[in-house]
Amino acid sequence: MPYYIGDVIKEEKRLIARTPEKFRETGVEVKLNTSAERIDADKGIVHLSDGTTVPYDILVLGTGASAFVPKIPGVELEGVFTLKKLDDAIQIKNFIKNKECRKAIIVGAGFIGMEMSESLRLRGIDTEVIDLVPRPAMRWNPEFSKVILEELNRHNVTFFGETGMVAIEQGKDYRLRLNTTRGEMEADMILVAIGIRPNVKLAGDLGLLTGKTGAIQVDFSQRASKEGIYAVGDCCEVYHRVSHRWVHIPLGDVANKQGRVAGRNVGGGAMTFPGVVGAQSFKLFSLEVAATGLDESEAISCGYFPVSTIIWGNAFARAMPGEKRLGIKLVADRASGKLLGAQAVATIGAVSRINTLSVALWTGMGLDEIGYLDFAYSPPVAPAWDPIHIAAQELMRQL
Amino acid sequence: MPYYIGDVIKEEKRLIARTPEKFRETGVEVKLNTSAERIDADKGIVHLSDGTTVPYDILVLGTGASAFVPKIPGVELEGVFTLKKLDDAIQIKNFIKNKECRKAIIVGAGFIGMEMSESLRLRGIDTEVIDLVPRPAMRWNPEFSKVILEELNRHNVTFFGETGMVAIEQGKDYRLRLNTTRGEMEADMILVAIGIRPNVKLAGDLGLLTGKTGAIQVDFSQRASKEGIYAVGDCCEVYHRVSHRWVHIPLGDVANKQGRVAGRNVGGGAMTFPGVVGAQSFKLFSLEVAATGLDESEAISCGYFPVSTIIWGNAFARAMPGEKRLGIKLVADRASGKLLGAQAVATIGAVSRINTLSVALWTGMGLDEIGYLDFAYSPPVAPAWDPIHIAAQELMRQL
Repeated sequence: MPYYIGDVIKEEKRLIARTPEKFRETGVEVKLNTSAERIDADKGIVHLSDGTTVPYDILVLGTGASAFVPKIPGVELEGVFTLKKLDDAIQIKNFIKNKECRKAIIVGAGFIGMEMSESLRLRGIDTEVIDLVPRPAMRWNPEFSKVILEELNRHNVTFFGETGMVAIEQGKDYRLRLNTTRGEMEADMILVAIGIRPNVKLAGDLGLLTGKTGAIQVDFSQRASKEGIYAVGDCCEVYHRVSHRWVHIPLGDVANKQGRVAGRNVGGGAMTFPGVVGAQSFKLFSLEVAATGLDESEAISCGYFPVSTIIWGNAFARAMPGEKRLGIKLVADRASGKLLGAQAVATIGAVSRINTLSVALWTGMGLDEIGYLDFAYSPPVAPAWDPIHIAAQELMRQL
Repeated sequence: MPYYIGDVIKEEKRLIARTPEKFRETGVEVKLNTSAERIDADKGIVHLSDGTTVPYDILVLGTGASAFVPKIPGVELEGVFTLKKLDDAIQIKNFIKNKECRKAIIVGAGFIGMEMSESLRLRGIDTEVIDLVPRPAMRWNPEFSKVILEELNRHNVTFFGETGMVAIEQGKDYRLRLNTTRGEMEADMILVAIGIRPNVKLAGDLGLLTGKTGAIQVDFSQRASKEGIYAVGDCCEVYHRVSHRWVHIPLGDVANKQGRVAGRNVGGGAMTFPGVVGAQSFKLFSLEVAATGLDESEAISCGYFPVSTIIWGNAFARAMPGEKRLGIKLVADRASGKLLGAQAVATIGAVSRINTLSVALWTGMGLDEIGYLDFAYSPPVAPAWDPIHIAAQELMRQL
C-alpha cells in the first residue's frame, strides 16, 4: 500500500501500543484484544471474552460499526477484503506485499472506495470500481461527479456504474472472478466497500432503543435510553443541526467529540454535544472533494424549499500561476433565505470553503450575510470576490 | 519582477483596458487618466483635469489612498519607489528590467514589504528590510514573528528592526545610500512601504466629515456626511464587527464590497454593508500568514477582558507526509467567553483556519461552540481534532 494507508497503520499501531500504559497512569485499565461477550444489566457486570467479568456503575458503549458484506457466494475467498478496522488494513497490506496482486476491483464508489482507488493505483495495481449507482460519490452533484470521474480516468481507474456484485469464484487469468449484474470481471483482490452498519448487538441485549437509522438512540449528553448507559461513536446516532433530525454519520472526528462529551458527563461534569452539520471530505489524487449540510432531496424531505446554484470560480486570484478552478454548489431555503448545504471540488481550496460554510450552517446564516463575509484575502489564497461570495449572491437572485 | 507582480500587472492592464468599452454597453462613460480637480457642490458639477465638467445628482467618492512618504532628503531620487498603484508596479518592473539592480532595501515590514521581499528575492536581487518596530509583521504575536523572521532568513532576506530612515543620497558601491538611525546602508533600489493615507482632499473641499482614522466617515449604506454623496474603498472608514468601531482597513476585497453596496443604493435599491472582522493574510515564500479580529491590546482598548493561547498543531493528520506544522493563536473575552481574534502561520492551512474563524467572529461565537464545530475531516486535510478545536478547548480552561 502507498504512503497514506501504510503510514496511517504505523501511526495507529503506535497509538494503540501506548494506550494501556498511558491510561494506567491515570488509574484506568485498558484491555486490548478483549471483547464484551455479554452484559448483565441487573447486576451491573460485563462478561469478557477472556472469561473474566468486570462490574460497573456506569456503562459506555463504543461498539463501533462493521463493514457490510452481502451474503453472496464466494465472499469468504482469499483476496476478498473489507476496510473498516486497523486489522483490515494490515491484512490488505500484507496481502499486497506477499501475494501477487496485479489487479483489484473495488465494490462501492463512496469515500473508502475512492480513497482506496488512489492507494491501489499509487501502488501500481490496476484498479476498477463498480457501484450499483450510476456515478461515483453520489452525495455530490452530477456536475461534480463528472470531475471526480475524470480524475479517476486520468489515473487509469475505470468506473462501472449501475453494476452489482452477484457472486465471487476462482478466476482464470486472475485469482478471483467477480460475477456482476453486467457480466464477469477478474482481479487478484476484491475490496467490498459498500457501507457500514452500527454494532448494536450488545445494545439490543440491554434493551436500548435504536433509531430509524439502526444506530443507538442517544440524547445530547450521549446518554442511551436506559439509566447509567452512554453510547458514543459509530454505534450511535448524532443530531444534525440543519435537518434537525437524529442521523447516523459514522466519522472519526464526530466519534472523538462524542467520546469527550460522554467522558465529561461520566466524570460528573455537565456537557452536551451540539451536533453536526454533515461536513465531509475526501482526497482523490489531486482533487479535494468536500460537502456539508443537505442536498436538495434531503432538504425537501426535511420540509425545506430548496433552491441551488453551481458556479465555477477560482480558488485564488486569476493572475497567480497554478491550477485554480473551483466548483462550488450552494443549496438554500427559498422560504427563509438560509443556507442549507454546500459542495465543492478543486485541486486546492475546496475543503477550506466547505469548512467556512460549515460554520455558516452551524449558526443558521442567510445568503445575504454569506455574500458579504469577511475573509483573509490576498491574491495567492483567494480572489477579491471569493467563490463563496459569488455563489451566495448568485443564489440570492433565486429567492 | 517575478511571476506574481508581473502577472498581476498584466491582469490589471487587461481589466483596465476593457473597462471603458464594457461600461459603454451599459450606458456609462468611463474616463481613464482623468482626475476630478474640483467639485462645485452647490451646482453639482465636477471639474475634470481635461478642462471639461460633469454634472451630477449623486456623487460617489472612490478616491483611494496614497502611499505615505516621509519628507526626508533624497526621497525624490531615481530608484526610490512606493507601491500602491498599478503605475508604481510598472515603474518598478521597468527599473529592474532596464537598470542595474543588484540590491534592494525595503523600508517597512508590513504586508507590502513582506510580499515584495519575496518578489525581489525570486528575481535574484539581494534584499534587506528595515522597520522602526522590532519585528516584521507586528500584527502577529512575537512567537509567529519569529517564524516569519526564520522564513525571511531562509531566503536570505535580512531584517533590521528598530531602524528608521533619515536621508537618501547617491551611493558609492550601489546607486543609493540610505542613512538610517543605525548607520548607512546602500542599494540600487529603495522601496518605501510604511503605510498609506486615505485621499480626502476632495472630501475636505466638500466639507465631508472624516473620522479619527483620517478617512471619510460613512454610514452602513456607504453614505458620507452630506446628502447625495457616497464614499467607498480605501478613502473611507468601515465598521468593525468585533470592536464595534469604525476603522480604516484599506483592502481590495472590502473596497469591492463597499462599491457594490453603494452602487445598489445609488441605483435605487436598499442595501447595507455589514462590516468586517479584520481578516487579512499574506504569503511569504512557503509560509501562509493570516489573522482576524483583535489582538489583546486592541481588545483591552475596546473594553474587553482578553485571554489568549497559542498552540502548535498539525494542519493535517500526523500520518500524512509533508510539512504540516501550524501555529494558531486565539484571543477571547474572559467575561463572555466569545472569540475576539485569531492568528495563524503554516505552510498550508493557516488562511483556511482564519477564514473559518472569521465566520465564527462574524456571528459572535463562543469558545464552547468553536471547540466542537463540525469540519470536513479527512486525514489529508485535517487531524480529527482540528487545531481550531484544540486551541478553543485550551483557551476555555482560562475562562
